[in-house]
Amino acid sequence: MSLVPRIDPLPAGLANLRDHEACARERLDPAAWAYISGAAGEGLTCAGNRAAWDRMQLLPRVLRPLAEGHTRVELLGRTLAHPILLAPVAYQRLAHPDGEIASAHAAAAQQAGMVVSTQASVRMEDVARAVRAEPDRGPLWFQLYFQPDRGITEDLVVRAQAAGYEALVVTVDAPVHGGRSGFRLPPGITAASLEGYSTPPQEPAQDAFARMAHAPTWDDIEWLLGIARMPVVLKGILHPEDARRAVRMGVSAVVVSNHAGRTLDGAVASAAVLPQVVAAVGGDVAVLVDGGIRTGTDILKASALGARAVLVGQPLMWGLACAGAVGVAHVLRLLRDELAIAMALCGCASLAEAGPGLLLGQA
Amino acid sequence: MSLVPRIDPLPAGLANLRDHEACARERLDPAAWAYISGAAGEGLTCAGNRAAWDRMQLLPRVLRPLAEGHTRVELLGRTLAHPILLAPVAYQRLAHPDGEIASAHAAAAQQAGMVVSTQASVRMEDVARAVRAEPDRGPLWFQLYFQPDRGITEDLVVRAQAAGYEALVVTVDAPVHGGRSGFRLPPGITAASLEGYSTPPQEPAQDAFARMAHAPTWDDIEWLLGIARMPVVLKGILHPEDARRAVRMGVSAVVVSNHAGRTLDGAVASAAVLPQVVAAVGGDVAVLVDGGIRTGTDILKASALGARAVLVGQPLMWGLACAGAVGVAHVLRLLRDELAIAMALCGCASLAEAGPGLLLGQA
Amino acid sequence: MSLVPRIDPLPAGLANLRDHEACARERLDPAAWAYISGAAGEGLTCAGNRAAWDRMQLLPRVLRPLAEGHTRVELLGRTLAHPILLAPVAYQRLAHPDGEIASAHAAAAQQAGMVVSTQASVRMEDVARAVRAEPDRGPLWFQLYFQPDRGITEDLVVRAQAAGYEALVVTVDAPVHGGRSGFRLPPGITAASLEGYSTPPQEPAQDAFARMAHAPTWDDIEWLLGIARMPVVLKGILHPEDARRAVRMGVSAVVVSNHAGRTLDGAVASAAVLPQVVAAVGGDVAVLVDGGIRTGTDILKASALGARAVLVGQPLMWGLACAGAVGVAHVLRLLRDELAIAMALCGCASLAEAGPGLLLGQA
Amino acid sequence: MSLVPRIDPLPAGLANLRDHEACARERLDPAAWAYISGAAGEGLTCAGNRAAWDRMQLLPRVLRPLAEGHTRVELLGRTLAHPILLAPVAYQRLAHPDGEIASAHAAAAQQAGMVVSTQASVRMEDVARAVRAEPDRGPLWFQLYFQPDRGITEDLVVRAQAAGYEALVVTVDAPVHGGRSGFRLPPGITAASLEGYSTPPQEPAQDAFARMAHAPTWDDIEWLLGIARMPVVLKGILHPEDARRAVRMGVSAVVVSNHAGRTLDGAVASAAVLPQVVAAVGGDVAVLVDGGIRTGTDILKASALGARAVLVGQPLMWGLACAGAVGVAHVLRLLRDELAIAMALCGCASLAEAGPGLLLGQA
Repeated sequence: MSLVPRIDPLPAGLANLRDHEACARERLDPAAWAYISGAAGEGLTCAGNRAAWDRMQLLPRVLRPLAEGHTRVELLGRTLAHPILLAPVAYQRLAHPDGEIASAHAAAAQQAGMVVSTQASVRMEDVARAVRAEPDRGPLWFQLYFQPDRGITEDLVVRAQAAGYEALVVTVDAPVHGGRSGFRLPPGITAASLEGYSTPPQEPAQDAFARMAHAPTWDDIEWLLGIARMPVVLKGILHPEDARRAVRMGVSAVVVSNHAGRTLDGAVASAAVLPQVVAAVGGDVAVLVDGGIRTGTDILKASALGARAVLVGQPLMWGLACAGAVGVAHVLRLLRDELAIAMALCGCASLAEAGPGLLLGQA
Repeated sequence: MSLVPRIDPLPAGLANLRDHEACARERLDPAAWAYISGAAGEGLTCAGNRAAWDRMQLLPRVLRPLAEGHTRVELLGRTLAHPILLAPVAYQRLAHPDGEIASAHAAAAQQAGMVVSTQASVRMEDVARAVRAEPDRGPLWFQLYFQPDRGITEDLVVRAQAAGYEALVVTVDAPVHGGRSGFRLPPGITAASLEGYSTPPQEPAQDAFARMAHAPTWDDIEWLLGIARMPVVLKGILHPEDARRAVRMGVSAVVVSNHAGRTLDGAVASAAVLPQVVAAVGGDVAVLVDGGIRTGTDILKASALGARAVLVGQPLMWGLACAGAVGVAHVLRLLRDELAIAMALCGCASLAEAGPGLLLGQA
Repeated sequence: MSLVPRIDPLPAGLANLRDHEACARERLDPAAWAYISGAAGEGLTCAGNRAAWDRMQLLPRVLRPLAEGHTRVELLGRTLAHPILLAPVAYQRLAHPDGEIASAHAAAAQQAGMVVSTQASVRMEDVARAVRAEPDRGPLWFQLYFQPDRGITEDLVVRAQAAGYEALVVTVDAPVHGGRSGFRLPPGITAASLEGYSTPPQEPAQDAFARMAHAPTWDDIEWLLGIARMPVVLKGILHPEDARRAVRMGVSAVVVSNHAGRTLDGAVASAAVLPQVVAAVGGDVAVLVDGGIRTGTDILKASALGARAVLVGQPLMWGLACAGAVGVAHVLRLLRDELAIAMALCGCASLAEAGPGLLLGQA
Repeated sequence: MSLVPRIDPLPAGLANLRDHEACARERLDPAAWAYISGAAGEGLTCAGNRAAWDRMQLLPRVLRPLAEGHTRVELLGRTLAHPILLAPVAYQRLAHPDGEIASAHAAAAQQAGMVVSTQASVRMEDVARAVRAEPDRGPLWFQLYFQPDRGITEDLVVRAQAAGYEALVVTVDAPVHGGRSGFRLPPGITAASLEGYSTPPQEPAQDAFARMAHAPTWDDIEWLLGIARMPVVLKGILHPEDARRAVRMGVSAVVVSNHAGRTLDGAVASAAVLPQVVAAVGGDVAVLVDGGIRTGTDILKASALGARAVLVGQPLMWGLACAGAVGVAHVLRLLRDELAIAMALCGCASLAEAGPGLLLGQA
């Protein structure tokens, strides 16, 4: 697999992420579109994520000096150009032949962070090799699904370290992972990083609880913190108590997330509990958020509520489908620009100036 | 009438109860569909029931041990595999020739409870005989409509006891029962358990109050508690004061219900008053709920608010219409699986772990 | 003009007031329909009236004795069979050739009250003569618009007394009356009771305030109370302070009303301020309400909030359009039956038992 | 350019501003319509502005003396016939060849204020000359966008003074001004007042902050207050703290505004923060408001919340498109009449009588 993505032409008229979404829906085959855009159940949580951002109202300040303004943030010891990361979306080659290679290059070009999924359709070593040496790239993290065999899980950790990943992101809100109901991966698309491991044939589980037998618990997190030689981030926290426990245990950051409404329909919107989680961890570790982030204004709102950074998942797949690496880079460029404009229009010269007072009824 | 239902093929593509609903709407003749799905008035209460469950938002916990998880509950002295009962829907042969025989077999196969209506289209003795001996079946209860002649009411109670029913469920939110406005039962479908009783010809009533002359009152409940040799459950309670009075009087459980919005349009959603009723009875008796339960998540939300079990009515008729006993069993299987998955995704290894803290703004 | 209405056949399938509305819309010519159903501005208040009733949720009681139940209320010294009055709708011959004669007969047959408008299309004397001697008829009231010439106003009062009207209803929320913008009365339809008065030609007013020069003020109410030899009712009160002032001054009842949203768009829903007005008058006089009453449940909700009686306006015109006197009688019959059923289903044997506790969040 | 507008015929059937909007949409070419009616982002703030006025509910008083009623207000030392001003909309010749000349004549004829934009398509001197001598005209203000070159900004101020403008309105919520994304002015339409200034070629800015390098700050306002020989008004304030700071600094009025939702999508509705801003300035200076004002009732609501006057922008362009000066005059006439009627129906003989008590839940 080539480590350099091809340069697709950017379709005309893509002025915001909604345009990318419409373009992607046209280009993808219906099954892939359904898989990428699918929500759990009736889609209540998926819609709730979006609605929660939309409901928040900004109370801008005016006439402040902005000439020196910037979007920089500190995250796990690095200074990032902006607070946007690509979420660990599985099987990105569903959207474009270059898959994760394209996304990684786009992220590097736009100084965005990238979280590579355990279920990436390109081997994690290849993704890392493709961009590790890019001069201004953002952080490169590895998303870890615990495997039924702890030895395999440990091997994944060791490989991630060897490949140069800078943090491990453990997904904790999807105890069972794998294909969505009825969706079959097309030929040639696999969880490349998992190839070569021999897994015992799984007998069909009796019920959901039996299927959870190998889902990670707090004990597993403890074990991982013991062996990992890089920061551990928990993704999928919604309850403040869980956030506090994670911090006490030594994790380096938490991602407030409901898996984009793709696992538990009826879960609270991530934006709705973000303030409580931020209050619960009390500044000890960074809090990130995802779920329904579609504009720079959404990112500014997340920052005002205390999020250090945000992840975008579906928009990454839209950009890939529209124009591969060029499309993802465009998605990231749009978000960066929209964020800077929103900050300027709110009188914020830096994200540190964005606090609850920027939102009606939050201060 | 055969006590063994036929085995219909399950139509393809039924992934949740909404699919069953769509399938049933296609298969039933419009008059039967209108009768089954009809709501009182403008349908405010019917829609309000659904909306109340949808509005509640879950605040899941993560990383808890789930391998030993289960959906078991205690109810009236028995341990049930799960908290789902089939509601006492009248005239089930409207949806399928096997009617209540099919439902009872499906309930037994899925270890669900079944409440047989006074207006069942199969004699209560036949329903009980069909499944009484099934090894793992759930509870079998008889729903009692008080009759104008107390002798007949008593005879129904005696027959229910003789047939092996384990509890009496008195419907208290529909003082007048019978066919809905304008709907005529097709030939061959009758309230089979009421055949053979001679009832005096009713003169047309002057107004609603005259029609209520024989509706049961608290005095009748007292009388019933005196003669019944099994637990008495009141179905159709919404006001906490009524729940308290029922408990003081000696009933064994109450069902928070507004008759699925089919009697009084404008009545409060059952989910909305469930917490107050639970608080009012203070754990002395079990509180059940029905009205708009369509997913396992709804059941988990009901449990979090203190309901011991739930009843489903229209979904039972959808399953019957789609595939008789097989269809009802599938409806129950879907609900059980969805409940277990929702519990697992919320970090609940048992329903006892589901409390108000699981719902945003309830703890 | 004949004082006996013709007997039109009732169209099939009219099961509630919505059906009457649909039927009327089909039968009336578009201009008359637009006039009858028209709302001020964007229709916010008109829609708000309906929404306010729909939003209220009933918390029924069960198992109460209902055999002796009734819908009777006391109003201005009389016992009425039920709390429903026909509102003072102008020009009822727009909807049916029999106009107010038909409405009055229907009201009498259904024991409903009738308020005859100053702008009735039948002379007030004829309306009163047509039904005054009916044995069980409800109250007959005269709605008074103050005239620019006080002598004419006084003459109207004297005539109303002579004709046997039992109360004067002064409309106070429409300081300027007359045809709606652009609507022209068809030939033969006039404000019959005002014929024969010579009114000075009005010069076109400079602005709204100039047009208000002759609108009644509290001083005029004082004058009217001095000359009227029957109870005076103010219709169009929304502010509790105005209700208090009316009571202090000696009026016998107030009608909480926003003129069905036909005058000031943006006015609060009548149902929304009813409780405050009831609290403000403190039981000293009866409080009535109109605006969006379409079902018996709405009437029960109004009673629970303290209204002694309700008025229906547009439904009267729908009934007229559908079947003249027969149609109006049917509208009233439907409302009476729905009210009795709603009471029974809520456990209320009389309207005195309907208090704020019947509504969620009101007690 | 002629200083006298032509007299277009008024299209039939324009009964309110919605009708003007529909008429304008038909007459304008789609690009101009899109530019005029365009909102930022998803249009959340634009829709929120309207919704905020609609949500407020009036609690009218009745039977008050209204014959002497009027709509007059005091503003910056003048008594105005009514509280309506034309907002500083750019490039009005997009809607009609007469552009700002037509608007100024219409404002003068209807005694409305007019704020002329820095980006007016007619030279500010011509606009002022066209109407300065009209006997009963309302105030004539100049809207000032700060220019990158302070010398040019000062020249604009000096010219505005010389031309007879009575106040300077500094827009503070659009730090970057100019054409909207993708929209190109048609040939012949320019920012006429800016012609002749030599501006250095702007290199493309790196990001939003770089583009803000020349946006005004509080220091610039201080400088302006030092050189301006007329009152200074800040337009685009939403935060009460900013309003307080402006007052302390010596501005004469503030306009609560979010630029009609055309700059920052997600900004709070102007109506929603009006009360806090009024409270913050405590009566020291006048508070004006714009954003979504479409009816006289909206103006009355704004007054009840403490606004001294309102500005209308898009309705001005609708009127222009429909019938030039005649159309704008008609828009203003409709608003004046609707305001007077709303006041009369609420029992307010003057706007001083309209306080928070007129709005449900505000007092």
